Amino acid sequence: MPGCLKTGYLGPTGTWAEEALLANTGCVADETVSFASIHDVIGAVANSEIEEGIVPMENAIEGSVSATLDMLTFEVENVRIVREIVHPIRHRLIARTDIPLNQIERIISHPHAHAQCRKFVRERLPQAQVVAANSTAEAVRIVSQSEERWGAIGSSLAAENYGCVIIADDIEDYPDNRTRFVILSKSPAPQDLDAPYKTSIVCGIAHDQPGSLLQILQEFAHRYVNLTKIESRPSKQGLGDYVFFIDMEGKKDDPRIAAALKCLECKLNWVKMLGSYPVG
Amino acid sequence: MPGCLKTGYLGPTGTWAEEALLANTGCVADETVSFASIHDVIGAVANSEIEEGIVPMENAIEGSVSATLDMLTFEVENVRIVREIVHPIRHRLIARTDIPLNQIERIISHPHAHAQCRKFVRERLPQAQVVAANSTAEAVRIVSQSEERWGAIGSSLAAENYGCVIIADDIEDYPDNRTRFVILSKSPAPQDLDAPYKTSIVCGIAHDQPGSLLQILQEFAHRYVNLTKIESRPSKQGLGDYVFFIDMEGKKDDPRIAAALKCLECKLNWVKMLGSYPVG
Repeated sequence: MPGCLKTGYLGPTGTWAEEALLANTGCVADETVSFASIHDVIGAVANSEIEEGIVPMENAIEGSVSATLDMLTFEVENVRIVREIVHPIRHRLIARTDIPLNQIERIISHPHAHAQCRKFVRERLPQAQVVAANSTAEAVRIVSQSEERWGAIGSSLAAENYGCVIIADDIEDYPDNRTRFVILSKSPAPQDLDAPYKTSIVCGIAHDQPGSLLQILQEFAHRYVNLTKIESRPSKQGLGDYVFFIDMEGKKDDPRIAAALKCLECKLNWVKMLGSYPVG
Repeated sequence: MPGCLKTGYLGPTGTWAEEALLANTGCVADETVSFASIHDVIGAVANSEIEEGIVPMENAIEGSVSATLDMLTFEVENVRIVREIVHPIRHRLIARTDIPLNQIERIISHPHAHAQCRKFVRERLPQAQVVAANSTAEAVRIVSQSEERWGAIGSSLAAENYGCVIIADDIEDYPDNRTRFVILSKSPAPQDLDAPYKTSIVCGIAHDQPGSLLQILQEFAHRYVNLTKIESRPSKQGLGDYVFFIDMEGKKDDPRIAAALKCLECKLNWVKMLGSYPVG
């Protein structure tokens, strides 16, 4: 990374995005700036307010982050993925003081965090009311200023930043919980690093071309390009109309990938390059 | 539907699920029962506490409802989709009294509703703080008991039920906003209705079989079975490991579909039937 002055993340301080940024790059807290939403982070990269931004792309339990995918697909041009960071997510149950689990009356967090800890909450905190917050860090901030019997699901960093106490560790329902973050920039990633690369695209398939996905996959299979992810999202044009996100192993200029993408561009309504970048 | 005594929905009263249920079935409000979460609705069907339940599956703007997909995939057996209901979603901005938009200080709703109205809120209510709630109806309930300057995104039914006022109509960012709900039951749908049918399955593809999705699609393409949706979700076994949801046109006993499914069962780790049902 070219220094990391002005790297943006979804705030407030203490989110998983901030933790991933500080743990995986040369950044220190002074060089980062928090934003209120994923939309704001990506928008700030697009209008050159910040050089780079980190946003969550996909979690191992809860799946893709639709705000990130939709923003990159429909709302910005010339913003590229330049690096992937895969960061472990160990959710903590956090409160103002060290109270027993059965006294928690209300449990606050981002809906994705709630979804990752659903069984834990159901089994260990059946009495607690589940309440949504805009981010895990926001949840911890609320709890730090609330009544004693409120709990939040968040990171150790958030517990520390807001002067709270961890009352249960590693409360996610499945082991190996990780989130794939991406760093975004207007300058595409250098293509000459000695590292494994991934290339990500999104493409539109017309509603009335039911066999098109098969044809897309064949373009890659013929050329022995390995796909690591295929996911559909609404095109916003109506129920039943989708765009497809495809991640593949390799650089965009690899002859096999370049040829496959060229064929896709001939066949489909549109193909958008999201980036070709070193894997996490 | 066999009467509709004890049909469950995601509550509280005034959710889009309740509106879809009352508008599209013979049900009246007395025959329905509300639950606190999608998990609870599906669990109540599974343990025979209710005969049927309605849950959201997919929205035209915001995409699939992961709580529904995950619960049907990983947590219940013998619960089947017996009917599909496609219901228009016209979000309203709702407040206690008829105040101007620029006086709204806080806007509350379910994160999916916020996502469907993101541009409207950004452009027309830039001053408002966005706050998450567990459902659109819960948001309207909170606003009905709050300060004057709070607004909620929800349905007309919710505005009516909680004695609130609609201050802006049809605020979703894209036209033709609709949600696909499904009705679930432990008794599979009759297969002899004179209507178009859909069949839905979910299947697991091993992480180390990169060409498998192509093979799956070929089984259907060879037999001219039209797929209406393909979507991946995390298998919860680790980042990069997915299950695939596939919807196809036709009944499960159609010879072409039955043959394709039989081949899939031979090739894959597992294939789970989610239902074969009349389309909405």
